[in-house]
Amino acid sequence: MADVKPGLEGVLAAETTISLVDGSAGRLLYRGYEIGDLAAHGTFDSVTALLLDGEWPAAPEPLAPAGLDESVGAALRSLPADTAPLDALRTGVSAWGAARGLDWPPTAAQARELIALAPAIVGGFARLRSGGDPVDPAGSEGLGVAGRLLHAISGEQPEASRERALDAYFVCCAEHGLNASTFTARVVTSTHSDIASAVCGAVGALKGRLHGGAPSGVRDQLTQIGDVEHAERWIREALARGERLMGFGHRIYRTTDPRAEALRGVAEGLAADAEWLKLAIDVEDVALRLLAEHKPDRVLKTNVEYYASVVLDGVGLPSDLYTPAFAVARTAGWCAHVLEQAEHGRLIRPDAAYVGPSVRPLP
Amino acid sequence: MADVKPGLEGVLAAETTISLVDGSAGRLLYRGYEIGDLAAHGTFDSVTALLLDGEWPAAPEPLAPAGLDESVGAALRSLPADTAPLDALRTGVSAWGAARGLDWPPTAAQARELIALAPAIVGGFARLRSGGDPVDPAGSEGLGVAGRLLHAISGEQPEASRERALDAYFVCCAEHGLNASTFTARVVTSTHSDIASAVCGAVGALKGRLHGGAPSGVRDQLTQIGDVEHAERWIREALARGERLMGFGHRIYRTTDPRAEALRGVAEGLAADAEWLKLAIDVEDVALRLLAEHKPDRVLKTNVEYYASVVLDGVGLPSDLYTPAFAVARTAGWCAHVLEQAEHGRLIRPDAAYVGPSVRPLP
Repeated sequence: MADVKPGLEGVLAAETTISLVDGSAGRLLYRGYEIGDLAAHGTFDSVTALLLDGEWPAAPEPLAPAGLDESVGAALRSLPADTAPLDALRTGVSAWGAARGLDWPPTAAQARELIALAPAIVGGFARLRSGGDPVDPAGSEGLGVAGRLLHAISGEQPEASRERALDAYFVCCAEHGLNASTFTARVVTSTHSDIASAVCGAVGALKGRLHGGAPSGVRDQLTQIGDVEHAERWIREALARGERLMGFGHRIYRTTDPRAEALRGVAEGLAADAEWLKLAIDVEDVALRLLAEHKPDRVLKTNVEYYASVVLDGVGLPSDLYTPAFAVARTAGWCAHVLEQAEHGRLIRPDAAYVGPSVRPLP
Repeated sequence: MADVKPGLEGVLAAETTISLVDGSAGRLLYRGYEIGDLAAHGTFDSVTALLLDGEWPAAPEPLAPAGLDESVGAALRSLPADTAPLDALRTGVSAWGAARGLDWPPTAAQARELIALAPAIVGGFARLRSGGDPVDPAGSEGLGVAGRLLHAISGEQPEASRERALDAYFVCCAEHGLNASTFTARVVTSTHSDIASAVCGAVGALKGRLHGGAPSGVRDQLTQIGDVEHAERWIREALARGERLMGFGHRIYRTTDPRAEALRGVAEGLAADAEWLKLAIDVEDVALRLLAEHKPDRVLKTNVEYYASVVLDGVGLPSDLYTPAFAVARTAGWCAHVLEQAEHGRLIRPDAAYVGPSVRPLP
């Protein structure tokens, strides 16, 4: 049998200048910049410009707020209230692309429009499903994309520490190499299709549980611990029962997860104003000490899910909007890959090995 | 630099028992059956059962007709009349999956529902855009999927020869290995996402012009020839001017395209009732003779686009519904691959080679 690679593990399917994911060094670069620097000194809107354009924006300009046009609004209103929010996002993006008449080639302007629209779709659907109406995007003038997601959900101006924490989370989730959703966006683009088709495909891929992750486990763990005073006993007992601590260890990062370090740095700066961040930081210290003691031969460091959960819960998102919020952030990376694929790529069309019946006559 | 394969050419990304595309032998098998046998003796509905279930159905059961539920209908009604029909199909499939609350794992029952829905979406949008209403699917009882597409567009019972010709075309287009759209459906499924997400991605990939093909060129050519009496002179002049004849030659099939042969067989059986098929058959004979004379060193045989155009034009489809009609047929193959990927596949996640800037400080 020929050499079949059903997961394409280790196959290099693209050259990219967008990001470097270096698992053994615990390093993540966007266009050459360390994720820690970007989370500490950048905003999601400036990181979006960096990802799309390739260079750090000299005068960062926030993306223009977007509302739901008639087609997107009607498509979202027609969905049952219990629709999975990612299905609503996929449908809204599809309706947007249809109404905009998008075609080849994708452009950076279309990408900015879509990245600005994503929080309006997620927030708009969140309000519609509970009987409310989408907010007027004019009320979110001056906010970045992360703040606008909070505004689109609650209709209120977000607290500064929450907006800052979510923005840092968005920076850390904006891009992460050729994962399955990003690869989907590139395959769709490789046929010379449009950017909405590519992002619809990516949202659909993100929906699978092998991709999206499950940060709500960390939140439950912190809720059970409740107070840092109880952390040591709670964690010792969990480890003694052979349980896994949620939020530690990563498939790719064999040492530290640079996104978790970056988010901790931001959390430390905000903890004076945000008790919920303080608990997470203190529990992390206890957990890392006990993990090193319990499994001295393994490197188990905090992963991005740990702070993802803390931030998403802390800013007041219901848990079924965690992955959709991630999708809003990742739209920046998807769009950057769409533009790169459009400029440099060729049709992606692997082969399959046929292992079915030999030729046979119809019965 | 490492070995980057930007198009994944020659990389075997899956094992499959669904179809064998053998370009050098000019052979296409679905589950071991020759495409010629299937087009001559099968129907699209029985081929769908074969593709989904793996075996030829003992008692072929037509798929149940489907109408547009409230969410799909509302999503389609909200789109501008000049929306690209493939964008409407993508949006309708997305709204259907959202309203149905689809999740992992995909099932053959969901696949049948979606394959039956596809002609209702394409036909329903075709009527809505010209101010009409979608037809009542009850009126298409007894028709196969191909006939139902014609009914969903026109509201009338299709002529038998047209239904038969379109059904044979659907059989020939139902499946064709790991092309870019089918691969997209498998990548989306590989994350453990749902079947609507996978088919949305596939429709988006099919939209690109490197994938979808352009059968309308053949139609224009036949219109210009007009009558078989003029064929020889018209073709000789075109070849003398160095022009390419549309509908001849294929990237994969270096000898005959077995789908074109299969469709010609069906066309010959119907030609007594259908003048439009007669012209195509006669012109094909002249063209093949002159191509062999003009380029004796190259094998230029009729490809599937030739009869695709003849059939799609002959059954009265406007040219902007050619690719959407193809998509209705290919939904069967996409769904078969979704089910196979769900059962046997693993997460598809290739790597990228980073060729961007080295680590640098923020300005």
